Amino acid sequence: MYELGVVYRNISRTDRATADALAALGSATVHEAMGRVGLLKPYMRPIYAGAQVSGTVVTVLLHPGDNWMMHVVAEQIQPGDIVVAAISAECTDGYFGDLLATSFQARGARALVIDAGVRDVKTLTEMQFPVWSKCISSKGTIKATLGSVNIPVVCAGMMVTPGDVIVADDDGVVCVPRAVAAKTLEAAQKREANEGAKRAKLASGILGLDMYDMRPALEKAGLRYID
Amino acid sequence: MYELGVVYRNISRTDRATADALAALGSATVHEAMGRVGLLKPYMRPIYAGAQVSGTVVTVLLHPGDNWMMHVVAEQIQPGDIVVAAISAECTDGYFGDLLATSFQARGARALVIDAGVRDVKTLTEMQFPVWSKCISSKGTIKATLGSVNIPVVCAGMMVTPGDVIVADDDGVVCVPRAVAAKTLEAAQKREANEGAKRAKLASGILGLDMYDMRPALEKAGLRYID
Amino acid sequence: MYELGVVYRNISRTDRATADALAALGSATVHEAMGRVGLLKPYMRPIYAGAQVSGTVVTVLLHPGDNWMMHVVAEQIQPGDIVVAAISAECTDGYFGDLLATSFQARGARALVIDAGVRDVKTLTEMQFPVWSKCISSKGTIKATLGSVNIPVVCAGMMVTPGDVIVADDDGVVCVPRAVAAKTLEAAQKREANEGAKRAKLASGILGLDMYDMRPALEKAGLRYID
Amino acid sequence: MYELGVVYRNISRTDRATADALAALGSATVHEAMGRVGLLKPYMRPIYAGAQVSGTVVTVLLHPGDNWMMHVVAEQIQPGDIVVAAISAECTDGYFGDLLATSFQARGARALVIDAGVRDVKTLTEMQFPVWSKCISSKGTIKATLGSVNIPVVCAGMMVTPGDVIVADDDGVVCVPRAVAAKTLEAAQKREANEGAKRAKLASGILGLDMYDMRPALEKAGLRYID
Amino acid sequence: MYELGVVYRNISRTDRATADALAALGSATVHEAMGRVGLLKPYMRPIYAGAQVSGTVVTVLLHPGDNWMMHVVAEQIQPGDIVVAAISAECTDGYFGDLLATSFQARGARALVIDAGVRDVKTLTEMQFPVWSKCISSKGTIKATLGSVNIPVVCAGMMVTPGDVIVADDDGVVCVPRAVAAKTLEAAQKREANEGAKRAKLASGILGLDMYDMRPALEKAGLRYID
Amino acid sequence: MYELGVVYRNISRTDRATADALAALGSATVHEAMGRVGLLKPYMRPIYAGAQVSGTVVTVLLHPGDNWMMHVVAEQIQPGDIVVAAISAECTDGYFGDLLATSFQARGARALVIDAGVRDVKTLTEMQFPVWSKCISSKGTIKATLGSVNIPVVCAGMMVTPGDVIVADDDGVVCVPRAVAAKTLEAAQKREANEGAKRAKLASGILGLDMYDMRPALEKAGLRYID
Repeated sequence: MYELGVVYRNISRTDRATADALAALGSATVHEAMGRVGLLKPYMRPIYAGAQVSGTVVTVLLHPGDNWMMHVVAEQIQPGDIVVAAISAECTDGYFGDLLATSFQARGARALVIDAGVRDVKTLTEMQFPVWSKCISSKGTIKATLGSVNIPVVCAGMMVTPGDVIVADDDGVVCVPRAVAAKTLEAAQKREANEGAKRAKLASGILGLDMYDMRPALEKAGLRYID
Repeated sequence: MYELGVVYRNISRTDRATADALAALGSATVHEAMGRVGLLKPYMRPIYAGAQVSGTVVTVLLHPGDNWMMHVVAEQIQPGDIVVAAISAECTDGYFGDLLATSFQARGARALVIDAGVRDVKTLTEMQFPVWSKCISSKGTIKATLGSVNIPVVCAGMMVTPGDVIVADDDGVVCVPRAVAAKTLEAAQKREANEGAKRAKLASGILGLDMYDMRPALEKAGLRYID
Repeated sequence: MYELGVVYRNISRTDRATADALAALGSATVHEAMGRVGLLKPYMRPIYAGAQVSGTVVTVLLHPGDNWMMHVVAEQIQPGDIVVAAISAECTDGYFGDLLATSFQARGARALVIDAGVRDVKTLTEMQFPVWSKCISSKGTIKATLGSVNIPVVCAGMMVTPGDVIVADDDGVVCVPRAVAAKTLEAAQKREANEGAKRAKLASGILGLDMYDMRPALEKAGLRYID
Repeated sequence: MYELGVVYRNISRTDRATADALAALGSATVHEAMGRVGLLKPYMRPIYAGAQVSGTVVTVLLHPGDNWMMHVVAEQIQPGDIVVAAISAECTDGYFGDLLATSFQARGARALVIDAGVRDVKTLTEMQFPVWSKCISSKGTIKATLGSVNIPVVCAGMMVTPGDVIVADDDGVVCVPRAVAAKTLEAAQKREANEGAKRAKLASGILGLDMYDMRPALEKAGLRYID
Repeated sequence: MYELGVVYRNISRTDRATADALAALGSATVHEAMGRVGLLKPYMRPIYAGAQVSGTVVTVLLHPGDNWMMHVVAEQIQPGDIVVAAISAECTDGYFGDLLATSFQARGARALVIDAGVRDVKTLTEMQFPVWSKCISSKGTIKATLGSVNIPVVCAGMMVTPGDVIVADDDGVVCVPRAVAAKTLEAAQKREANEGAKRAKLASGILGLDMYDMRPALEKAGLRYID
Repeated sequence: MYELGVVYRNISRTDRATADALAALGSATVHEAMGRVGLLKPYMRPIYAGAQVSGTVVTVLLHPGDNWMMHVVAEQIQPGDIVVAAISAECTDGYFGDLLATSFQARGARALVIDAGVRDVKTLTEMQFPVWSKCISSKGTIKATLGSVNIPVVCAGMMVTPGDVIVADDDGVVCVPRAVAAKTLEAAQKREANEGAKRAKLASGILGLDMYDMRPALEKAGLRYID
């Protein structure tokens, strides 16, 4: 259950350097580095291809068809933040467009992650303000009901806490809890470090079967080759 | 219930200047200007990004898996029209491809809006003939059953009447009834007129909270700030 | 039911020239040429626009959340093959990324068709290794359970047999059985041959109603024109 | 587009005897008798099995999450009516429960057809007040925004006009326009009249192939029997 | 791809005693006994609760909106058969009602499994003719296009071959290939034999942790208990 | 992100009397009493109609296709508990059947709420062990991977903490946090107290318009009656 009508002004953000460094690794590597957890549901898609960002989370809880709290959360944005917007029930309305994006960008936000719809996607693309959303919809919203800012929320099936790190790219959106962000960065960088050598081997025609020495395990599991 | 097997040749189209002028405002602004109604369901997506059109509606009612009436509606197209295609039951088949698009374009059609599938999307993109559809599918159709042309239809959940105006862009598809088209254009232009100034203020860092003077209402609603 | 834990090394591939020639015709024309069958469900979408390929099928059956057999199938790829991956139950995980793509490409694979998710789509796009998939997801998989390679599978609702031909483009994915590939190619080329002339006629404003001589049949079916 | 904030008090209801007589025929027979049109989408399901009703339509247009107009429509109900509730955008909230059902039943309503959710289904079942809905949900609604009563609406993909007849049973919901209700009743009764004799023949083992004399047409279409 | 326009009259049915004996074991136990394969997608639901059947498969391939071949397959039914109906593309129409059920029952069919809709479900329930289907719909079909009878089909994602065994109950539908039916029956009966003793132990309060001796494996996997 | 491989043995359960008393009020009234929050998504449905329960929450986090932790959570059940099962990614497998239900019932569990599938539903119905689930499926699971017991989880879109109260009935499933359970019970009982009188008034034909004095507000909002 959510606490309604509150704005937490002071949140403990993940260390800036750590939060920033995760972007380069991408959502897939970071997700693996955490032990294959933390991923928002795959229906969350970028409004344009190619953006790859990370940032510290500020959250906003909105109600169906009502984007009033978007203006409230704007004030809590600090440079390097990513806004994570959850809705108290399923909704596909367009909560966010070019005016709010202008305001968020002016405050230093890097992206929006929203479990609902957005609009003005052509302008958002021109502004290069990336959004990961459930859908795109022209449908507007009203400003009538209080939600909350910077409470823990569930967004696209994942618990997201203010101050966590979001890593988002064409593959999806991962939430890295503040407590494990440094460790995750380290693990992800270690994974990444090996990728170049592996890619070169595979490109030369060496099989993963041999590179990872999988044949004995496959044989033990009973794999039969039939000519 | 639909009247089947009829083609209405004479429909009352919205005034051309009004119909044409709505394109520039876009689906989100037009939808707002009508009081947040008129939007087709958000599963209607453009086959390529960037198209933004408006035009007068000619309608066609088709049956599942049968695109015979597409050829009948082609004859009723006048320059500046947009064809709105409804299906009498749910279907994802590809009703429309490059040949029909060539014909529609030759007749002066600006776009197709169809609550089913289309195909040849690469060629349609090259031709710059925009389509908003439920899906993309290679699956072809037969030509066996009569539907109707220029009857009122339900397309993607919205009632659409011949002669109405369709406004479509990357955000979705809005239907503006002929009776309110002029009034809607005026209201939309008024909304648009203020946007530039608002955007400049927000870009300078002024918050929507202040620009729209939301703080008293939020306080009255009981919003609490917690440090 | 699937046979598990087997790899068929020798499959009868469709004649190379036939398999290669089908690409140019595209999924819609090939699907029509087969009598409107063979199409995988339209939820199968390309990860980037514009790719148009054909190739001989090697199949792999995987289990939910487990991509072990992807490495096994890599060894069975011959130049000109397309890998068709089926999952033994519904899953949206990202089974395939840039490393596997590097390996597949090194082996001569032209594409992957998978009834599940993929990741690293930005890199796959840069590599120009096309994938048709159900979704995109960062979610990784484990390597623990045996599936099979080169058994007949059901992928996105369609039976696919090793050695068949896959034709895939922006409109979708069609499977052409080996036994009918040559006949299908011929029929598709015949369809294609007429398209240029038809397009020119339609572009000049001639209606399909007249070009296809539809008016008598429509009248016989009872179509009424109302002024 | 919908007209908002209006209540039409005088509607032309289908003749009572006709409206009442359609119930016995059921939604499938009535749908066939109309030429296979008029059916609401099959996601509309009864909250309990076994109810089979018909009645004259009063409509209500509601907004997402707001059931205020349910109280307004209650006053317009006459004995023998069925309320058809459309929502101006997709919503799964529970708009209707035992208190409203008590009021509707006291006014003489026979059923509710709603393109959203309902709740208190155990009590509604005990009251034997049937509802056909998109879903069941405890989620409550507010009373804040005007919709309309007795305007034409789109409910589950079908245009429904006040005064039409709804026929609903375990198979689904059909809307019979007032203008064709008498003719539809007659056609449906004719279909029904033959069913008993057909059923007896089929029960005796006579095949539909022979009873309907299908063999020549199947042969002509090219059906081949292979031993 | 499917072979169209053919009826195979002679199929090799699974041994009657084996096919009949599988019903008592239920879909879950049979599915486990086959190694957790063979299950049709879980959207296949019974039209009424409580039916539990098994029988030998006759298949029919139908086209969207066309149930002509239902009459053709009726003639191929032998006592103890279950008809498995696949559609060549997705469709939710009601292909089957009380008349066809009367005919199927008269021929000795035990059930219908169909990857589409059915209607007259109240009468089917009274007749105790069970159907597992994707949905329920009043929508009728035409009789215009040839499909096939007794070819291998894909139904709800599973390959089904004539002569296989279907086991269906409230939990779902499993297809047991003829070649493994006897072995599956034996394995399923063995599983079943132990269930009574297990149930008694668990009912007495003994934990599965102890009954299955899971604690060492859990500890080895690293499970930590925190007080 | 979830903590994996841990079992919290000591959780603070909501006071027994409070937890027990909530059942009688039902999910809709309790949801309203909390301010219209706390509801799990409406796809969660009971496996049989009529059950209405409340109980204290023990949670279990499982992985797709793996029900090993179901045996671990069984040991943590105390009489009056309801098990809430979350899955780390979407899955429709049947995680729970009659043997586990026997064990859970022996331990005193009142119900299972699971964001996945269950099986043996006929037996569960006979045992009167209620389950609210996303689906029903025969598909079995393996026992290979550690999840956790009694950590906070997201189930069907809602955060659920061990010791909270679940209220579930035919309308859906509500989670009442321990901190507000007593207050919610009081508020729900107050709502309930007024229902009898209201129902009597409405049954007598008094309109909600008058009983709730809605006419002035509707008029002020601009509602127009048209004769």
